[in-house]
Amino acid sequence: MEKELLAKLETPCVVIDMAQVKKNIADMQAIADASGCALRPHIKTHKMLSLAKLQMAAGCKGFTCAKVSEAEVMIEAGCDDIFIAYPLVGEFRIRRALEVQKKLKRFILAVDSMESAKPLSDAAVAAGTVFEVRMEIDTGLKRTGVTRDKYLQLAKEIAALPGLNMTGIYTFRGLVLHDEATTDNAAAAKEEGELMAAMANELRAAGIPIVDVSAGSTPTGALLAQTGLVTEVRPGTYIFNDYMIMKENNIGLENVAARVYATVVSTPEEGYAVIDGGVKTFPMDGKLDQPPYYFHGYAVVPGDDNLCLQRMNEEHGMITARNGHTGLKVGQLLELVPLHVCPTINLQNEVWLYEDGTLRKEKVAARGCLV
Amino acid sequence: MEKELLAKLETPCVVIDMAQVKKNIADMQAIADASGCALRPHIKTHKMLSLAKLQMAAGCKGFTCAKVSEAEVMIEAGCDDIFIAYPLVGEFRIRRALEVQKKLKRFILAVDSMESAKPLSDAAVAAGTVFEVRMEIDTGLKRTGVTRDKYLQLAKEIAALPGLNMTGIYTFRGLVLHDEATTDNAAAAKEEGELMAAMANELRAAGIPIVDVSAGSTPTGALLAQTGLVTEVRPGTYIFNDYMIMKENNIGLENVAARVYATVVSTPEEGYAVIDGGVKTFPMDGKLDQPPYYFHGYAVVPGDDNLCLQRMNEEHGMITARNGHTGLKVGQLLELVPLHVCPTINLQNEVWLYEDGTLRKEKVAARGCLV
Repeated sequence: MEKELLAKLETPCVVIDMAQVKKNIADMQAIADASGCALRPHIKTHKMLSLAKLQMAAGCKGFTCAKVSEAEVMIEAGCDDIFIAYPLVGEFRIRRALEVQKKLKRFILAVDSMESAKPLSDAAVAAGTVFEVRMEIDTGLKRTGVTRDKYLQLAKEIAALPGLNMTGIYTFRGLVLHDEATTDNAAAAKEEGELMAAMANELRAAGIPIVDVSAGSTPTGALLAQTGLVTEVRPGTYIFNDYMIMKENNIGLENVAARVYATVVSTPEEGYAVIDGGVKTFPMDGKLDQPPYYFHGYAVVPGDDNLCLQRMNEEHGMITARNGHTGLKVGQLLELVPLHVCPTINLQNEVWLYEDGTLRKEKVAARGCLV
Repeated sequence: MEKELLAKLETPCVVIDMAQVKKNIADMQAIADASGCALRPHIKTHKMLSLAKLQMAAGCKGFTCAKVSEAEVMIEAGCDDIFIAYPLVGEFRIRRALEVQKKLKRFILAVDSMESAKPLSDAAVAAGTVFEVRMEIDTGLKRTGVTRDKYLQLAKEIAALPGLNMTGIYTFRGLVLHDEATTDNAAAAKEEGELMAAMANELRAAGIPIVDVSAGSTPTGALLAQTGLVTEVRPGTYIFNDYMIMKENNIGLENVAARVYATVVSTPEEGYAVIDGGVKTFPMDGKLDQPPYYFHGYAVVPGDDNLCLQRMNEEHGMITARNGHTGLKVGQLLELVPLHVCPTINLQNEVWLYEDGTLRKEKVAARGCLV
């Protein structure tokens, strides 16, 4: 970025390189298109209307959201096909989902138990409508999703509910069960696809007409699309990428479209410097169940393996030096790549979009959408 | 809270018990007043205008902010005396500080190096004004603050700058250097106060007229005020309290004014259940340099030692059971006390204030104020 623009930044702030965003969007779309696999990007990463519009313009099938409130916001971008990849539980949420359904061409909800499916079906019947749903399957991550020993029975029970039309199954698996240092992502993608395809076939054999088999996040999404084993992939992080994806997908900095800029505010000792961003700027989550030091801190400095964001308080970030000398000066602007970009964006009210030598502000429209 | 009100909540959400907030504010103010010690609450915990007004009505001396953007927001609450307890670095920030200064009766900034002090002095001189400043001292935490071997020399240099009027010193120490299971908070407060009083006296002996000696956060604030060793305390978390303070201050749930409500969305196994809040609802930071499992997870369930929030993804929170049986049902509303309430509030656009049998919404006005 131009020096004049860097000098105008008030830190901490996030700057998005739009040329790289467009390349990331185009590359993933091209792979999906060439594979005949639907691409349904997850908007939880960017939460911004203008970026959703770019994904639509590139030809994505529709969007994935985590929450009904995110779907409400994405309708403003002109989205007409949304899948909420999260078991929809709670009368308050079902009520909002019924309203969202009226505004979309296609709306798909998720269920992973009869306890979640039955109230959804009842509400649809009462409203004189039907909800299209997919059943979530836990393929090893141990969060939501029906376990593999129970999915056939559950699918039969869901299929019998009058207010639901079960058209697919989905999972989130990523590389979370793997060690990214040794994992063959293509093998992981094939494993994920084979698991899902086998279950879809078993359900079809049981008389349940599964159409959509959806899986794949950024670590396996592009590879999974090319296997032909699934009908849809749902990557989110690929639009920006981050330090976690650099490690997991073995890609370089040139693929990362998001940067956090921070200012060095204090250099009390040679071995560490303090920047003006802590946990209210950089989230602490990495891989599920992995301690953060599994990675090289909470953020890295592009082109400088000596430095990393090692410790944080709310507004203090401690940049430590492997060699004991940070070399940083008070007032210096520092460019960082966060470990996990999705919750990083969620901490911002707005971000800067950089394109063609200019910066423009964009509201993080679905920031804080939790319901 | 009344069942009818609980049934109206859309989760995840934060509910603040205003009766307890008022008691927490009054108790801390009473201790400060009785001790003749100024109370300057840190607003980073609540970030809300109506709560700042309550603290003013109770008689607080002024406010502490972490960022100039927080100060800008707090002016809207009618605050006229603000201390930004963070080294003010960056031309963009100094420019905003000059504007804030025009709107306040008293405005105090922080410096911890000549690299931060000199540009501040230069800007004040250029604007025809003087900034009142305090020098931050690192009393062991290793984040910002001049180290104890250098503070005397730095104080002399700062005192000689034409644009700054150094009236005080401050530190943040908390109980961070201690193991809360064995620490005597009163002894920790005395140690903190004695350190700061000794340095203030040494500075005075060197001809630097230190007036304000400011220290103390929620773990030591009330005890430190009573020692007579400092002139001001700056607790923030005390307005709500949280699970970390319950452990550090050995206080009970009845002192905690903030709750997160979440809904159980999935119970795939007996040993864990999933709630509709992950790291976008519950922050992961605890004590600096301490792994989170130092505590009993990222949130606890009041009155239920069996359950805790043990693992998280962005929107998934895994509640695990010590005895292997959560007993939780899909759709169930769960009340939680977060490990660290300050960044929890910062993740919300608005929270519910509960008082006299009613709920009203309050905007988290300074949420996301990072500059």
